[in-house]
Amino acid sequence: LQLSLLRQRIENEIDNFNKELSLQTDQLNQPIQYFLKIGGKRMRPILVLMANQVFSGNIEKAIKPALAIELFHNFTLMHDDIMDKASLRRGQSTVHTKWNENIAILCGDALMIESYRLLESCDDAIYKLVMKSFSKTASEVCIGQQLDMDFENSTNVSIEQYLEMIKLKTAVLLGCAMKIGAYTAHITDERANLIEQFAIALGVSFQIDDDILDCFGEEELVGKLKGGDIVANKKTLLMLLAIQSADNNTKAKIDALMNNQYEPTQKVGAMLEIYEQLEVRIKAEAYKNSYFESAKHALNQLQLPTEQYQLLLAFAESLMNRKF
Amino acid sequence: LQLSLLRQRIENEIDNFNKELSLQTDQLNQPIQYFLKIGGKRMRPILVLMANQVFSGNIEKAIKPALAIELFHNFTLMHDDIMDKASLRRGQSTVHTKWNENIAILCGDALMIESYRLLESCDDAIYKLVMKSFSKTASEVCIGQQLDMDFENSTNVSIEQYLEMIKLKTAVLLGCAMKIGAYTAHITDERANLIEQFAIALGVSFQIDDDILDCFGEEELVGKLKGGDIVANKKTLLMLLAIQSADNNTKAKIDALMNNQYEPTQKVGAMLEIYEQLEVRIKAEAYKNSYFESAKHALNQLQLPTEQYQLLLAFAESLMNRKF
Repeated sequence: LQLSLLRQRIENEIDNFNKELSLQTDQLNQPIQYFLKIGGKRMRPILVLMANQVFSGNIEKAIKPALAIELFHNFTLMHDDIMDKASLRRGQSTVHTKWNENIAILCGDALMIESYRLLESCDDAIYKLVMKSFSKTASEVCIGQQLDMDFENSTNVSIEQYLEMIKLKTAVLLGCAMKIGAYTAHITDERANLIEQFAIALGVSFQIDDDILDCFGEEELVGKLKGGDIVANKKTLLMLLAIQSADNNTKAKIDALMNNQYEPTQKVGAMLEIYEQLEVRIKAEAYKNSYFESAKHALNQLQLPTEQYQLLLAFAESLMNRKF
Repeated sequence: LQLSLLRQRIENEIDNFNKELSLQTDQLNQPIQYFLKIGGKRMRPILVLMANQVFSGNIEKAIKPALAIELFHNFTLMHDDIMDKASLRRGQSTVHTKWNENIAILCGDALMIESYRLLESCDDAIYKLVMKSFSKTASEVCIGQQLDMDFENSTNVSIEQYLEMIKLKTAVLLGCAMKIGAYTAHITDERANLIEQFAIALGVSFQIDDDILDCFGEEELVGKLKGGDIVANKKTLLMLLAIQSADNNTKAKIDALMNNQYEPTQKVGAMLEIYEQLEVRIKAEAYKNSYFESAKHALNQLQLPTEQYQLLLAFAESLMNRKF
């Protein structure tokens, strides 16, 4: 159960999917093929396969569901890129930039439908369970995206609202991936729920870590400017924690940094100084650790054999020990 | 089995759906509720209920699937409105105009997911059949929309390509509606396929009729300008038939009408004169009648009891005898 092997399997499946698309004449295929090969860590489909394997399932039963989750994820990215007016994703042109917005809307729609079609491969015994989990999650992901957009224009976002947003926008799909993986190994609902909870808590923890690394990651390892979120005035957990604990004087400083034109490095430097005064990093780490503990708690409740338990624990810890 | 009663039932179900949405705090609800109440003929959900009733099904089993089809239809309309930059639908502001484009993208996505969730109400015995038909159709509808967009910028669209486009963009969803309605009455695949073929052929015939009525409908009954498609340079079946049978001189006249600025009534009058010379209306009616005959052929093969047969035939004929 090596991650690199699982990942390779996913890449092969994406290539097969793309090849089958090539045999059709429909012009929506090219942007879809292009976007699917931009890459990414393939974390979600790997989680499907891992859950299947941890519960000793037949991995072949998990391949198409894994691909379905990856396609759904790419649907959300394609539409989010339009909404965020993002011209690049992983250094490559986004679909609405390389083609146009109409194509990106329609290809996103088609990807979502294809993800549903791939799930038809599930055994009848689990099919409806899988569909219910998938659609419920899909609906939550849409709400998460809407909350994220709302927050951009909102002046007071609470920590709870922010955590709920990252849970819906990102973590629930990780949960769904592991739950569906468990279903493909014909695991009962209670244990499928536990592995879902494990992945959701891990996902929230991972997203918080993302916020922290943007400010405090090791720059030489990332190769990009530290503090990109600060430059973009993104309402990250760190920013919200800073606003929450700042006195009026510091609040005014934050406002000034956000609303005036500054040279990026200067802006980042000034904001990081405020973060340090307010001990924002420590507070964010506490949230991150609390979710990580929840993840481990769910993992313990699963009462897996030692080998499988160690595997998931090592995977979770590796996610938390990123340096960039 | 009065159409007006079926329609009333659908309206009630939409109201219930909207009320349940109101209980949630998610802000995507308002645009969805608004759009679902702009109205329309509710033809697709009515077709689900009709098919259920024609096969003596329990109508309660068909209600949520009917609503699912209507929600899916509204998803396509919401996204099509963005792509077509349409500011009005049935005299009301479109969602991307009344709110914004991002909201319209996301609400469309959410509507599609909700349509999948409503289908979870299907009995386990038919659930996967329903899902397969639904997703296949959904995929075809996307391809139809893409073909429609391609045709706008294409200088030579064949009659076959046009007919395929209206089949995919519109007719297959009518087919899927009746097929799913038949499934809810636990009808076997062969007969479900026949009623699907009936509805697809009827749908193509209906779309051709739409093209004809735009030019030759009774204006005083519509209350809108005759020849709106001509003004908009839309590649309708009539236009394609005209281009196909025009000599070089007439082709040049058509080109001039399409590419220069004209006062609308003058443009429509001149184009209708060309249509008359080329007997375009008669040719279009022939296509329409040929699809209508296919629909009746499928209906005959169903070998329904006289009452049910008469009912579907009368419904089909009423669609074909519109004056506007």
